[in-house]
Amino acid sequence: MMSASEQAGLIHADDLTVGERYEFAHHTVTEQEMIDFASVWDPQLFHTDREVADKGQFGGLIASGLHTLSIYQRLAVTRVSGRWNVIAGRKIREAKFLRPVRPNDVLTGSMVIEEVSLDDRARGLVTTSAELVNGVGVAVLSVVSDVFVHSRPH
Amino acid sequence: MMSASEQAGLIHADDLTVGERYEFAHHTVTEQEMIDFASVWDPQLFHTDREVADKGQFGGLIASGLHTLSIYQRLAVTRVSGRWNVIAGRKIREAKFLRPVRPNDVLTGSMVIEEVSLDDRARGLVTTSAELVNGVGVAVLSVVSDVFVHSRPH
Repeated sequence: MMSASEQAGLIHADDLTVGERYEFAHHTVTEQEMIDFASVWDPQLFHTDREVADKGQFGGLIASGLHTLSIYQRLAVTRVSGRWNVIAGRKIREAKFLRPVRPNDVLTGSMVIEEVSLDDRARGLVTTSAELVNGVGVAVLSVVSDVFVHSRPH
Repeated sequence: MMSASEQAGLIHADDLTVGERYEFAHHTVTEQEMIDFASVWDPQLFHTDREVADKGQFGGLIASGLHTLSIYQRLAVTRVSGRWNVIAGRKIREAKFLRPVRPNDVLTGSMVIEEVSLDDRARGLVTTSAELVNGVGVAVLSVVSDVFVHSRPH
């Protein structure tokens, strides 16, 4: 008899292949979304106040790094890891904010499976690396993270 | 004549002291906030669907790691780094999701300045480490990050 997760067609840790690469969909970062996100979670004026930001270091608003990371997570889940039988995220090994993200940037990117470590608790620790690029192909974010994924029931 | 940032009383990289420790305010994580955040940025059912989550690994909804990181950022900015003359975040060196964050958890924590590296471009790279704990004092998040902060004008 199939488990509920198999019925749902979810992918297990043992199904994942090191080196496998996935392309993300696109996400347009509107100015309103930038301001809305940062007003709650990262209320610094260069993220939330256009007039202040115009006179500042970057000559305009830039997205919160947390916002950019959240866009990465949304793109990863909707295209890739949403089909995995995930237990929970374990760690961000590193996230680099490489270049500013600005209003109306269209972000996309890709993710690669770097490592799958199966343990004796019916799960695997899956390490992925990913990059987001803007509309002119400039990398704005790199991120390496670890997530626990259920192993296939034996 | 004082610059605008000095008039605003902002703290510069050269004013920060390695080892300095700051206590955060508190943030209550409501179930609605958890679902609202994850529905947009991390749409996995154990973050967004109470019925599915109740039957799952954790016996109830758990917060997205991105949500927990965003709570950290809000607590850090409102109590600490919002008074610094920040240029922009550079990197999350590591973020560990130590324990599940659940509805109605009240999170707080503290942050320590680990390193200040002044460069010749009138800025300092400030490394901080921080931890968030829940209402019973259990650590749920540790995070080490680097942020560029303007140096005091000479």
